[in-house]
Formats: sequence, structure tokens, C-alpha cells
Amino acid sequence: MLNDVDYLKQFFEPESIAILGASSDTTKPSSKPHVSLIKRGYKGKIYPVNPNYNEIFGHKCYPSLADIPGKVDLVIISIPAQGVYAALEQCIAKGVCAAVIFSSGFAEIGLEGRLLQEKITALAKESGIRLCGPNSVGLINTINGVMASFAHIVDIPDVASKSVGFVTQSGAYGVLIYAEALANGVGFNYFVSVGNEADTEFADFLEYMIHDSATKLVGGYLEGARDGAKLRRVAEKAAKLQKPIMIMKVGRSKVGAKAASSHTGSLAGVDQIYDGFFKQTGIIRIDGYEELIAFAPFTSAGRLPQGKNVAILSISGGIGVTLADACEGLGLTLPMLKESTMAKMKEVLPFFASAQNPIDMTGKYMTHPHILLTCLNALLEDDSIDIIFANFELFEPYGVEIARGIIDIYNSTSKTIVLNPWVYPGTDEGEGVRELRRAGLPVFFNPTLTVRALAQMADYAEFLRKRKNREYQIPVTTRGERSKVELNDLEGVLSEGISKNLLASYGIPVTKESLAQNEDEAASMAGQIGYPVVLKVDSPDIPHKTEANALKLNLSTEEEVRRAYKIVLQNAKKHKPDARINGVLVQEMLSEGIEVIIGVTRDKVFGPTIMFGLGGIYVEVLKDVSFRVAPLSPGDALDMIKEIKGFELLKGVRGKPSADLDALVDVIMKVSAMVTELKDQVEELDINPLIVYPAKMGVKAADAMVVLRSS
Amino acid sequence: MLNDVDYLKQFFEPESIAILGASSDTTKPSSKPHVSLIKRGYKGKIYPVNPNYNEIFGHKCYPSLADIPGKVDLVIISIPAQGVYAALEQCIAKGVCAAVIFSSGFAEIGLEGRLLQEKITALAKESGIRLCGPNSVGLINTINGVMASFAHIVDIPDVASKSVGFVTQSGAYGVLIYAEALANGVGFNYFVSVGNEADTEFADFLEYMIHDSATKLVGGYLEGARDGAKLRRVAEKAAKLQKPIMIMKVGRSKVGAKAASSHTGSLAGVDQIYDGFFKQTGIIRIDGYEELIAFAPFTSAGRLPQGKNVAILSISGGIGVTLADACEGLGLTLPMLKESTMAKMKEVLPFFASAQNPIDMTGKYMTHPHILLTCLNALLEDDSIDIIFANFELFEPYGVEIARGIIDIYNSTSKTIVLNPWVYPGTDEGEGVRELRRAGLPVFFNPTLTVRALAQMADYAEFLRKRKNREYQIPVTTRGERSKVELNDLEGVLSEGISKNLLASYGIPVTKESLAQNEDEAASMAGQIGYPVVLKVDSPDIPHKTEANALKLNLSTEEEVRRAYKIVLQNAKKHKPDARINGVLVQEMLSEGIEVIIGVTRDKVFGPTIMFGLGGIYVEVLKDVSFRVAPLSPGDALDMIKEIKGFELLKGVRGKPSADLDALVDVIMKVSAMVTELKDQVEELDINPLIVYPAKMGVKAADAMVVLRSS
Repeated sequence: MLNDVDYLKQFFEPESIAILGASSDTTKPSSKPHVSLIKRGYKGKIYPVNPNYNEIFGHKCYPSLADIPGKVDLVIISIPAQGVYAALEQCIAKGVCAAVIFSSGFAEIGLEGRLLQEKITALAKESGIRLCGPNSVGLINTINGVMASFAHIVDIPDVASKSVGFVTQSGAYGVLIYAEALANGVGFNYFVSVGNEADTEFADFLEYMIHDSATKLVGGYLEGARDGAKLRRVAEKAAKLQKPIMIMKVGRSKVGAKAASSHTGSLAGVDQIYDGFFKQTGIIRIDGYEELIAFAPFTSAGRLPQGKNVAILSISGGIGVTLADACEGLGLTLPMLKESTMAKMKEVLPFFASAQNPIDMTGKYMTHPHILLTCLNALLEDDSIDIIFANFELFEPYGVEIARGIIDIYNSTSKTIVLNPWVYPGTDEGEGVRELRRAGLPVFFNPTLTVRALAQMADYAEFLRKRKNREYQIPVTTRGERSKVELNDLEGVLSEGISKNLLASYGIPVTKESLAQNEDEAASMAGQIGYPVVLKVDSPDIPHKTEANALKLNLSTEEEVRRAYKIVLQNAKKHKPDARINGVLVQEMLSEGIEVIIGVTRDKVFGPTIMFGLGGIYVEVLKDVSFRVAPLSPGDALDMIKEIKGFELLKGVRGKPSADLDALVDVIMKVSAMVTELKDQVEELDINPLIVYPAKMGVKAADAMVVLRSS
Repeated sequence: MLNDVDYLKQFFEPESIAILGASSDTTKPSSKPHVSLIKRGYKGKIYPVNPNYNEIFGHKCYPSLADIPGKVDLVIISIPAQGVYAALEQCIAKGVCAAVIFSSGFAEIGLEGRLLQEKITALAKESGIRLCGPNSVGLINTINGVMASFAHIVDIPDVASKSVGFVTQSGAYGVLIYAEALANGVGFNYFVSVGNEADTEFADFLEYMIHDSATKLVGGYLEGARDGAKLRRVAEKAAKLQKPIMIMKVGRSKVGAKAASSHTGSLAGVDQIYDGFFKQTGIIRIDGYEELIAFAPFTSAGRLPQGKNVAILSISGGIGVTLADACEGLGLTLPMLKESTMAKMKEVLPFFASAQNPIDMTGKYMTHPHILLTCLNALLEDDSIDIIFANFELFEPYGVEIARGIIDIYNSTSKTIVLNPWVYPGTDEGEGVRELRRAGLPVFFNPTLTVRALAQMADYAEFLRKRKNREYQIPVTTRGERSKVELNDLEGVLSEGISKNLLASYGIPVTKESLAQNEDEAASMAGQIGYPVVLKVDSPDIPHKTEANALKLNLSTEEEVRRAYKIVLQNAKKHKPDARINGVLVQEMLSEGIEVIIGVTRDKVFGPTIMFGLGGIYVEVLKDVSFRVAPLSPGDALDMIKEIKGFELLKGVRGKPSADLDALVDVIMKVSAMVTELKDQVEELDINPLIVYPAKMGVKAADAMVVLRSS
């Protein structure tokens, strides 16, 4: 039995590669991988296939795949779209396990191409051959020289330090990212352009790379995920292996989302859901490739920050202030240093320097660079500091000596030390910096990007710490009390009463209420529930009861209830004469609290997705909401509550007590359990509002609506 | 009479330069400018001054300034702090107009240095000599080779294209920015490190550079402005000359602000006020020097976008989506293209390409690059488009031909065209790109930074357009009705009644109200005002009437008023037995509306500064407020209203009508007039809440507090 990722091994570790459509014409795409395989010293067998040649670039050329004497592991298909299906049949006949398809003219060109693509997908599923593409610029493994790509990437000279894997849904942009990374000294082990994803997809290659021990960081360019559940499993494996995944997910804007979706034909989904999903699964979302490049040295150094407390040490007050702003803006903190730490530094700093964080070593550093080592040592001993960001210059004649001092300090601690030597562009970095590099220490140049990467690294480390805690375990969902049979009798929008019964069956607190069929029943129920009460029409066809004026609040006497019963029914019928009316709900009138909304939608990519926000204008006007994909953990639920700006209100402001966050988390968890279990039945759910009372006083759903999937 | 900036000319256009503390030792700071003046071909006279030498680097060396035979325009002072005062006396005796002081050991080292600095400041004011520094790394003019700096900047080879001036409050960081800019092909005409600003300051040099015709863009690194009013005048001049100012203002974070303030000893002020001030004056705030570098080509091209509608044309769907996201995230819009535009493009694009914005030219571009020209021409004719962002590749054998086509198109239009050719890092940019450069067209490489710069340019162009409109003219403020004498009798916190009288005297609508001294008066006043009424204690010592329980709302009968009168007084006295009590305010009870807050504080840098926000939790919890410095224009007032996130609420949501924005603008303008006129008297002002009613229905101040300056 193959492991989850073993089946992709033939793409990256083939012992033999055939090139369909091989050519000696170096302007042809098919010649690129051929030339590059040779140039990059690929050790396996290379079989060009083309009936028009006897030999290409020193390799015997075969008229067809069948004519190749040995086994073929990987086939590069570089022929017109029309011939691809037949070529794949030949591959299957030959026992080939994997094929990279450069050819375009599939789903990206419309209906005709889509049909052709569906044919090759079916063929792959049926035969077991794995495909990358079509419409892929190819893939490469720079470690063993598998250059199965016709893109410019095969021409870019490699760099010594490489530990990144990269998967892209845009061939051209992916190549640009690869080139920029290498120009910045960040090398890739693997690069895959997934093309139209007729068979393998983005998440499959992420998974392969995560399991590669030489790969410390996996990056991706993503327009839309195919399968949210698969991406989630991959992210969970990555977290277990402590391998960060950084994804440049495009389509934040409306226009961008539309273009992304039409570009790859993938389901873009709601972009904000990706934000929640990424937070939940520890995937680091980036807006540009610069962030991947800046982050890579952190992962190759392999040291995780123990917290978010930063000390900044610099040789310019200006840089210190700029770094402090950048750190605080990204959620890192600059704590006060201990008196003892400052005292040690004051011994070497000029009398007028404050030794406060950010620490300015002043111009004295230029004549006495050893003060850097004293300051670093002092900061190492300060347990209020997790991260030291050192901005300095290494110059003659002290460069190598200071560098060695830094190396000793770096190796003596497990704290994160960010080394940001000051090298003027266009000048030699000097022996000191080279000494740092030789010792394998990570050095960073652009201070702004480095702080961003540092913040991402600190967030990632926090994510890894958190997920070990019990509250970040996803509970096993248990069957609710309500039977599926009952649900199966219903469809479409459920009335408030029925919706609340369903919620209550999962343990979610709802208003005390009964469904009255006449005035007398209403009056008697009101008496049982206790005044004041609320009367509302209960109808699946009137979801907006306020608009219909089919709801009366704060009724204090039997007389009021009887009058309200008539009016509510009358207005409901006037609003929608053909509405199906279950009766009139008699409901306890809830006391005031903070109104929040919990909503669930079935996202096409991620399935049931929970939204949280404060009620009223916060959601509608300020769009202050957070998302998480079900099922989630209590920690996720609390995170999504804390994520909204209005959280301050729940925390308790102006002397008011904190809201009952435990009860709120509990309801979100119950909603998560319910929609996970009923994911094939529930299309939508809306608890609006849920009233949240002060701590220990609970929450209650005042109104709710469930929409079932139409079968 | 010297023009405002002529007095600084001697810094940049001196006919002779003396160097105090000159040395032949090239490790000494003083040798740097000397060597560089020679190397960069400075045409004026150079006079080294040092009694220990006869000659340095081929120039006759003088024992003292007095010994120099001719006139000396500029003196570089590179001697220990203790000798600077005497050196300046010699400069004055010699008739020197300007001196750059490298020496440190002044205000930055504490009290002793500050006293020394105050002495040289006084000497400068008295004699008229102008100083740059002390603690400055110097200044340079790259056009005429005035290299009056000891910093690394003098060693960096210049570039051909230069049109930037730069002023910095951090010497070291400024030098880094200079180096980074030059490494990216952006050259500086001027660079000034202002040091401790003992005499000249940041804004003075900005002003000088703005008036230089070769300088198209002025940048700055700022920790804290000395004089808000001066900076405002300079910004206004810059706007008149259409010269953008870009300032990297640090100190956004609390720690950063504190460090910046202790670093230069300048008054950092409230960072958020800078945001408002910059918006008001058209200064572009940047967070990093990368933004200055990316922006510079826009200014040297000298074309202002006519609007914010962007068409994106790219050779990769991925790039197109990424650019679309970036544009929309920064306030640019990607409109739908006209049918006729799309039809023209569809003639050359592949059948499956959509020709929608963002436009993907697809792989067809690589074989048919002329389609770029067809698309550009089609977009030029589409009047829904102001800006074309073209992402393309120029390759052989078509590169030069396509480039020439682009040049013709560029020169045929006044639309902004952003040329973003795709050049892999480390590869030759090619003849095509060189052809674009030779024709003087601006080319941009990093797409993310370019979009940000484009958005800033579009915002700046909008600012220039807006300031020509009447509503952006600042009205001449007129004396209010209230006499200063009356105000002069008061001090400290004014009671609500007196505060509102003051507001009313400036035409600001306040509640109908009277001050009652006894129950009978209260009852009779309530009758005159009309029920329901509010009773509040009127005391300068009880600003928080709710806390003191000295306020009763919604009183509907005389009996209630009489009872409330007693309770209010009683509670006020209990809350603060020694409070000065003016009486009890009888006030109309306002009907519901939207509560907003208008506040004024006297900022140490900018003077009276107006804050606006929605009432209650919006300000207190969500910190959703905007600032502008008084006096402001009606356009500024409307901008500050629209800037807050809660503006949606004022616009009218959920079927509610829009709030009376005209009346709101009017009140802000009256507050602006009042605090401008009374800027020496008013320390603080708070209208909280101001009730805003639907359009045409006005606003009314429900409560207010004025605090006068203590004399």
C-alpha cells in the first residue's frame, strides 16, 4: 500500500524520463527540459520520443513510447492538446506512473477544452496514472536535476542554500517568484506548476513537499483551493512536522476574485473564509512573494521564538524607532527591560544613552564595536525577552572578531536572534558578514520585511504552542437528540420555532416558547412562560418578521397578548397571503444583553463555515465578523470571538462586567457539532440575535433560522 | 529683502567652503568632505583650516578662518563640541553666512549639551548666521559637487536620473535610504541631515528643495516636527507648485513615539494627528523608504492621473489577479470596460480570452506581442479608464519594435500609463526596455510597490484637484460675538452652561436651556422651554454629571422638575462637597438622533486640533476617530466625517435617511473658527454628544465642556 504521498514520488524521483514531442529545435518548449536535464546532471535515463529524429542532443530518439526498451517512470508531454489523450493511453500501456502535461487547450479555453480535460481526468482515475497539468509549465527537483519544465526556471543558476518547496496555480507568476527568490539567495528544492489540476492538485504537492526532510518551508500561489478538507489535512500534517506553509492567496478584492475564478476555473470561495481557515490551520497567508523570501532564512535557521517579546538593539536611533513601530504594528511587543539588564548595558554605553528598549548603541559603536557583544549577552540573560533584533555594522578591522563573538553568543542560546547587518547596496558585505554566513547563521537585510517575517514566525510558533493545549483539540462530535428522520420530512427554510427546536436538541439555549394555535392557547402559554412575553408569527415563508410587522414585543397582560395574537396573524397574512403559518410563537421576553450573531453557510470549498459578529450595525455596517471552518476547537471559537474589533465590548467597557464568554464558546461549539453532523442536510443557519449576558449568566438565542438543503 | 528660502542658498550654492578641523588623515571625519569636494569636481574655492598643516590634499591650509584671504560662504565645522561656540564667533567675524556642524555633544547628551546648544542657537539668531546641525552628518548638493558631509553618501556613485531632494532627522538612517535609492536607480539632488536643529529645521530645507526647479519630489524622514504651522505653509507652497512631499514619519507605536522623542528631543506629538494633518495638506505619508523609491519615477515622468479608474493588461492571469487585488485594496478601481473597447481587443485576443478587466493577453502574447499595442490603443480610447497598468515582456526579435510602438502610444496621450516590463532578476533587461528608458518613459519593476506608488500618485492628484474647489478654501475666520474680556475673567474648566454660551456665541446650535437658582425658577423655566426637560447641575467642578448622579432626564411635569431640582443639587453636593455650583441647568430634552463627538485639543506641534467620531463605544472602544488641524475647510470637515468607519451609519443604513451632513460640517467649521480665534485661550473643547438629525433637520449640542488655558 502506497503512503499518501508516495504516489507522487515518480514526479520527483524518476529513474527514467521520456519526452513526447522532443525536438532538437531549441526554440521549442520540449527542448528546454531535455537540455536542462543534461545540463543539471540528471542521473537517470532520458528518452526523447519523436518519429522524425534518430537522435537528439546525444540521446537516441524513439519513434514511440512503446519502442523504448526499458521502464519509463515519468513522461513529459509536449504535444498539441488533440494528441494528449492518445499519448496517455500509450503511457498507460507502457506502465508509466506519472506524466507532466505542458499542452494547453483544455479547460482554460472553454467548453470544448473542458470536455477533453474531463476525458483525461477519467482516464487517469481509471488507470492510476498520475498527471500534473495540463497547461502546466512543469515541475522541477533541483536536488537531483529533474528539470521537467519548459519555463525560464530551468535556466536560473541555483544557490547553495535551499530548503523551500513551491507550488503554484499560476505558471508565469510562479516562475517570477522563483526567479526573485533565487536572486535574493533563497533556493527551492521543488517547484511545481499545477496547471489545470486535471488530476493532482495544489494540496497534493504541498503534502509531498512537507514530507521531504530537506524542505523546511513550503510556499504556494493559490487562486482557489479544490478541496478544503484535503488542504486542512495537509495543514494538520505540516503542523505536526512543524513545517510552515506560506500561501499567497489572491482574490481578496471582488474584481480579483472574479478574475481568479475565471482564470483557473476553480471555485474561489469567499476570500474572508480563507483568512479564518488559515488562522485555524496555521497556514501563513502572505500578500506578496517578498514575504516568502524574507521568511525563508528563519526556517532554515530552524529556531522558533518562545514568545513575542522583542528587544531591539541598533546603531541608529532612527532605525530603532522604525523597527519599534514595525514590531508593535505587527503584534510583537517591546517590553521594558529589567533594571539589571540595563545596568549591564549602561556599563558600556555612553553616559547619555538610556539603555531602554529600543536600545541605541549610538555612534560609540563605530569606535567600540565590542559593546554589541556586551549588550547581546545582557539581553540573553533577561527572561522578559524572547527575541533579540540586532541591527549593526561589521567593519574592518573588527568585522571577523565581532562576527565570531556573535556566533558564540548565537550558539549559546535557544533564543531567537535576528541578525540585521547594515550593508550598503552595491558594496561588498565584508568578511564579518561572510563569517556569520559560514557559521550558518541567518542574516537579514531589509529591516521592514524582516520584521514582518519575524512577526509571522512568532505567530506561527504561538500557533504550534497553542495547538498542543487541550482547548485546541477538536472534540469528537456526538449525535444530537434529534433524529434524522424528522429532518428528512422537512426542506427549505424552517420556521423560527422548528429551527429553535433543532438548536435546542443540540443543547443550545433558546427562549422559553410555545406555539399557539389560537388566542386562548396564547394567553395560557403566556401565563406559563411568565410576563412579559413576545408574540411572533411562526412561518417558514416569513423569515423577516419585523418587516412583516408580525411580531409584538414586551406584552405584559393577557389582554395585550390576545390583542397581539390577532394583529400578528392579520399582518402576517396581509404581508404574504399564501404563507404557510404554523401558528403564533409565544416567547419569553429576554432581558437586555449584548447581541451577537452566529451564522453558518456551506462554502463550496470548505463546507460548513461558521461566522461570528456583534449584532446590528456591527455586522451590517462595519462588517466586523470572523470566520472559521467547522469543526472547530474551543480555542478556535474563543479566537474567532476575540478577533472582531467589537470584542472590546464583550470584554466589558465603561465599568460593565465581561460577557459570558464561556457560554458563548459553548454555543459556537454546539453549532459546530451540529453543522458537522448535519453537513449534508443544513445549507444555512442563522442565530440572530444570540443574547449574551454577563459572566456566568449564560446566553440565549432570541431568534434563529435554519435552511435545509434542497434534495 | 531675502526670499523665504534664499537664506539657505549658501548651504547649497556656496562659492567658497572652509573646513574647520581639516586633516590629511583620511580616517578623520573632516577629511571626507574635503576629498569628496575634489573628487566630485566642486568648482568653488576650498579652504582647509588647521594650524598644524601648511597644505592638505593640494590646498593651502590656514591657521584660522581670519587668515583666509577671500570671502567664505559656507563653513564645515568638524571639531569637538567645546570649540564650536568660539568657531562660530570666528565665522561671524569673517562674515560667513552658513555653517554645517558635524560635532556631537549637544542636546542629544543631556543637560550640559543642551545648554551649549542653546548658546549657539542664541548666537545664530542674534548674528544671522544660519546653522545646519549640530550632530549632523552633513548635507550635499550632487549637481554642483557640494559634498559637505562625512557620511558614506559622498562615496556612492551618482546615477543619471535624479530629481529627488531629501531631508532627514536621522543621519544614519538617512544615509541608508540614500544608498538604497541610488542602488535602485533613483538619484538625489540634495540630501540634508538636520541633526539637532539648533537653528534651521526639517521644514526649512523641505521649503528650499520645493523651490528648486530640478527637484520634482521631496522626501523626508521625520521623528517630530518642530513647528506645525511652518510645515503647513511649506506643504501649501508645495501643493501650489504641484511638488509631492513624501514623509516617512516614525513613532506610530507607543514605544516608537517615546523612543523618537527621546532620540531627537523633539516633541513627537500625537501620531494620529499627523495622519490627519498630512491628509489635509497633501503630504504623502510613507512607512518605508521603498515607497519613496517606487514613487520617484512617477514624478520624474510628470504625469498626473486624471482619476482612479485602472485597466490592467497583463501576460499572466496570476499577475492580473494579484494587481487587481492590490489596486482595489488601495482605493483604485477596476471599472467594467466599454463594449467597444472589449470588441477591439477581442479581435486580437484568443477566442477564449474574456477581454475583461483585468485583461489577460494569455500565452498568445509570446508569439504575437503586437496584440499589446492593439490593446493599449483600445484602452486609450475608453474614457472610463484613467490609468493603464501594462505588464508585459519585451523579447527578441520584437523587443525594440514593440517598445517603439509603446513610446508612440505613450506620447499620444495624457493618460497615465504604467509600464511594468517583466525582467527576471539577474538577467539583462534587453534592448526593448532600454529603448523605453532612452525615450524617457518611466519603467517600474516590482509590481506590488508600483501599485502602492500609483495609488499614492492618484490620491495626490485627487488632492490637487480638490484643493482648487471652493469647498477646500479655508474661510477667513470672523470674530465671534463673545468678547474676550468676559473670557478673561474665567479660567480652567468651564461649566456646561458657560461652555454652551460660548459655543452659541459662535453660532453652534445648543439645547434650549436656562440656569435656575431655585425650584420655582426651575419650574417656570421648564414651562417656557416646554416638557419634557432635563435637569443637570451646572458646575465647573463636576464635569461627569452622570457619575455624580447630578442629572435627571425626561422630566414631564412641574412636580417631577421640582423633585429633580432637589435631588440633583443634593447628589452634586454629596459627590463633591466643595464644588462651585452655578445653579441647575433646565434643558430641553432632545429627541433621538445619531450621537457624535467633536473634540479639540491643543497639540504642542500643531496647535488647536479637531477630533471627530461617533459617540459612545465607537470612540471609546473602537477608537474610530479622525483628526484635522484648525483652521480647516468645509471640504476637510466633510473628509474627516467620511474618514471614520462608522460613516456608514451617518450615510443612512437599513432604510434610515442620511444624517444632516451639511449641519455637521457647519458645526465643525464653527468650532474651527472659534478655536482658531481663541487659540491662546482655549486649551480643550468637547461637544459630547452632538445630536445629528436627518438631512435638513440640523444638529444640536446636548452637552459641552470648554477648558481654558491657565495663565
